[in-house]
Amino acid sequence: MKIALAQLNYHIGNFEANTQKIIQTLNSEKAKETDLVVFAELCVSGYPPRDFLEYPEFIELCKTAAEEIAKASKGIACIIGLPIVNPVIEGKNLYNAAFFIEDGEIKQVIKKSLLPTYDVFDEYRYFEPAHEFKCIDFKGYKIALTICEDLWNLGDNPLYKTCPMDELMKEDPDLMINIAASPFAYNHDEERIFILSQNCRKYEIPLFYVNHVGAQTELIFDGGSLVFDKAGDLVTEFKYFEEEIQVFDVEQIKSSIVLNEKSNRQTDTEQVYQALVLGIKDYFRKSGFKQAVLGLSGGIDSAVVCALACEALGAENVMAVLMPSKYSSDHSIKDAEDLVKNIGCKHTIIPIKDIADTFDETLAKEFSGLAPNITEENIQARSRGILLMAMSNKFGYILLNTSNKSEAAVGYGTLYGDMCGAISVIGDCYKTQVYQLAEYINRNKEIIPQNTITKAPSAELRPDQKDSDSLPDYDILDKILFEYIEMKKSSKAIIADGYDADLVAKVLKMVNRAEFKRYQTPPTLRVSPKAFGMGRRMPIVGKYLS
Amino acid sequence: MKIALAQLNYHIGNFEANTQKIIQTLNSEKAKETDLVVFAELCVSGYPPRDFLEYPEFIELCKTAAEEIAKASKGIACIIGLPIVNPVIEGKNLYNAAFFIEDGEIKQVIKKSLLPTYDVFDEYRYFEPAHEFKCIDFKGYKIALTICEDLWNLGDNPLYKTCPMDELMKEDPDLMINIAASPFAYNHDEERIFILSQNCRKYEIPLFYVNHVGAQTELIFDGGSLVFDKAGDLVTEFKYFEEEIQVFDVEQIKSSIVLNEKSNRQTDTEQVYQALVLGIKDYFRKSGFKQAVLGLSGGIDSAVVCALACEALGAENVMAVLMPSKYSSDHSIKDAEDLVKNIGCKHTIIPIKDIADTFDETLAKEFSGLAPNITEENIQARSRGILLMAMSNKFGYILLNTSNKSEAAVGYGTLYGDMCGAISVIGDCYKTQVYQLAEYINRNKEIIPQNTITKAPSAELRPDQKDSDSLPDYDILDKILFEYIEMKKSSKAIIADGYDADLVAKVLKMVNRAEFKRYQTPPTLRVSPKAFGMGRRMPIVGKYLS
Repeated sequence: MKIALAQLNYHIGNFEANTQKIIQTLNSEKAKETDLVVFAELCVSGYPPRDFLEYPEFIELCKTAAEEIAKASKGIACIIGLPIVNPVIEGKNLYNAAFFIEDGEIKQVIKKSLLPTYDVFDEYRYFEPAHEFKCIDFKGYKIALTICEDLWNLGDNPLYKTCPMDELMKEDPDLMINIAASPFAYNHDEERIFILSQNCRKYEIPLFYVNHVGAQTELIFDGGSLVFDKAGDLVTEFKYFEEEIQVFDVEQIKSSIVLNEKSNRQTDTEQVYQALVLGIKDYFRKSGFKQAVLGLSGGIDSAVVCALACEALGAENVMAVLMPSKYSSDHSIKDAEDLVKNIGCKHTIIPIKDIADTFDETLAKEFSGLAPNITEENIQARSRGILLMAMSNKFGYILLNTSNKSEAAVGYGTLYGDMCGAISVIGDCYKTQVYQLAEYINRNKEIIPQNTITKAPSAELRPDQKDSDSLPDYDILDKILFEYIEMKKSSKAIIADGYDADLVAKVLKMVNRAEFKRYQTPPTLRVSPKAFGMGRRMPIVGKYLS
Repeated sequence: MKIALAQLNYHIGNFEANTQKIIQTLNSEKAKETDLVVFAELCVSGYPPRDFLEYPEFIELCKTAAEEIAKASKGIACIIGLPIVNPVIEGKNLYNAAFFIEDGEIKQVIKKSLLPTYDVFDEYRYFEPAHEFKCIDFKGYKIALTICEDLWNLGDNPLYKTCPMDELMKEDPDLMINIAASPFAYNHDEERIFILSQNCRKYEIPLFYVNHVGAQTELIFDGGSLVFDKAGDLVTEFKYFEEEIQVFDVEQIKSSIVLNEKSNRQTDTEQVYQALVLGIKDYFRKSGFKQAVLGLSGGIDSAVVCALACEALGAENVMAVLMPSKYSSDHSIKDAEDLVKNIGCKHTIIPIKDIADTFDETLAKEFSGLAPNITEENIQARSRGILLMAMSNKFGYILLNTSNKSEAAVGYGTLYGDMCGAISVIGDCYKTQVYQLAEYINRNKEIIPQNTITKAPSAELRPDQKDSDSLPDYDILDKILFEYIEMKKSSKAIIADGYDADLVAKVLKMVNRAEFKRYQTPPTLRVSPKAFGMGRRMPIVGKYLS
């Protein structure tokens, strides 16, 4: 039996595009005499469809699309994922389901049992968990088909009381197929390989695993579909961040790869780079936009975002706006201009001095007798925000946000100023990771000017300002933030790891008090296991460590 | 047996304040010889604690607080709600639990079984559902204690397969107690009375129901705790939007109230008014702020927000900023000044002409040869946003957002302009509801100038602009929006209700395409059953009806 795994890039709610992509794949696989084509979880609707699922009309459209796909499956079989109505009165109204379609007919419906409801996932918001399990019979094979999380209940602290494969093993299946929607995080590929391999070792049958590829706003699906033999050894690892289809002969599944061969794997930084490029590319393509604008300060953050945007959209589609103020240093403008020269994007210079002065004059009466403070710094940042949005409005550019995760964490940024943008590109990368990205971008030749990399970070909103005036060194700050945000450690535990107690208290307080700012920031491309946004839901008015 | 129901206002994560409030209540009830004091769901932590629950340290602090409350319960019994660790390896790490504490000791732990995971609720994100049920024995009574949703699984389309009271009835209890965290929506009080009364009718025992009161950022808990006799007739309905404690003699529970006596109930508009006032009050008090700033345009939205803020914070704590442009009509300034005169708040006038001109000059080279369009309109709105944020930064005022739900729905507003603010006050009120609020505010005397109410709505960002130039009349628009947002009807169904097909398609498209704007708007005080924000989670890059 020949099985094709189709790792494709879908678009949420774009039934026409998704259906056409699936049907075209079926047609080309028919020509190759493939027996079964496997598509990803909820491929019909795109993943995650979120509250579109609450619209009965949306569910109807999924059904119509599935029927169209079924019609196109004459002479071949396929597996597709879609939400379906729960016919039982009790429980949630939907199932997260897979159709097994053979020769034009929907032969079997498989439902997901384990519904991830943590971090960025909300599946129990919509779906009833399945409690019945049945293998698929096809061409003399018994196939144990599961959906994503269904295979993830191994380990020391299982999240669920049910283990779907334990149930399916009662029928003695010949192979496992798992259709997934597993988003990228820099540590997730190895985790995925480990867990899926464990399943093969436990059940002693081969596994065919298909993931989504492509970005859906903040979530970036990295592909990397996998095939394991019955010993749990890796047969194939699909490309990351690209569409790919591969066909396998089930009789000949045998690994020739050494599992987890570290030397061949991409570094985290390479992966993050590719993820962010895909994140930008798909945000624009799926929204119907082509051109980006961003503010280029001469600092490292905007330089890295500019390089990523040029890679994603083409330098000719990126407009960098230099907006010097009276506090901008000469080297800042030169550094920004050097980057533009190296990279070849469009640029323009719009000084903000007159605007900032006019705000000061307009507010002179109100602020009479009061010393300049953060207010005037914010006015500069916000004037730049207005200019960038004006460029966006006038020319149809989409504004890229250039804040990093360290700033977003401690609230070192101006709401409606440098926190503007349609999408935050590096908002899930700590400052120290931004430097790693810069080094990676410069791996073959200098794109980001060396001075941008070596100078001390500064917001340049007052004379001789340095980030280190108000923040700890990023080396230390980022480690404390990682322990608190990614690892959810208590302040006591962080201090026990060797950090100064006052510093830890100060940093955690800054994080918790900045919740109101993060609430209003753009969606952030997620590359870590714990990004700000839909995966981290905090009270705004609270009083915990704040 | 004397039972006290304590309807109190908690603060999320403020263990000191919550614990003190509970202990003080216990002490005053001891003096009254009350036997049992019942507090609300998760009263120890405040509700909803959201991802604070993922911090083991937070759960430890809940435990420490509960032990302190137990110590203070010598000579009395109480029921408190808190998250506790699930000791079983499988499943989620926490339970949503209640402690029954008697004479200084934690005697029994009850766990919530039905975990709301829809709209604004995320309980299965954190908690394992309970599958064991046991009544509490106290002073010769058998008490069936349940937590909020546990009583809500009646009706034609039950969300859950378990019905906790069916299980507890096996022990033949004498009474039901339900501790809740049930947020306000204008239709929710009557729904609550209906469902709880149905429980009494089904199980034929009395019910004591305790709710939270007070706002937690966007969620407003309205109180309205309830007692029913065994016939399901209402014994007491607590105050709404206020703390209240009442003591009941269990032997003498008998209704003398006619259930659902409509004539005595507040109108929806009165309720919404009180909810919004409490929402503002608690946002400021719990964040440690006292003073508000807002832009006053002369239009109905900012007038209503100004009146609400003055009621919540005192007129002396509200600063209204008039920011006329060259397109502002004379009557706008006069209307705004009339309101200030009527209401007595602080005000100042900051014209934006010079700022808008400087932006135009600064951008003249970039925009050379291009006609003015929405770009220049947005520059005006954003200049106002900067001025308001400058007032906020300089004086410590908190900026109130004045957008309404109709605008938020169709994206008729400027990001980083009039969409700025720490909290959106009327963002869950359609324009037609804003007019109803204005009439209610004027119920005794004219506060909002009549001209503000009667003139045609306009953003005044270009000469002679009217909202009706780009939007359908609000009477029609709001009805279409309600069918789509609150009722989740398909476009076909809305058209079948008698609306023009092109208009419906246009409106729904506007709603879906404005998702990126709503993502970055402030948290919105929730007063309807479907508010924008945490209760409505939509893809940004999608292609459904857009």
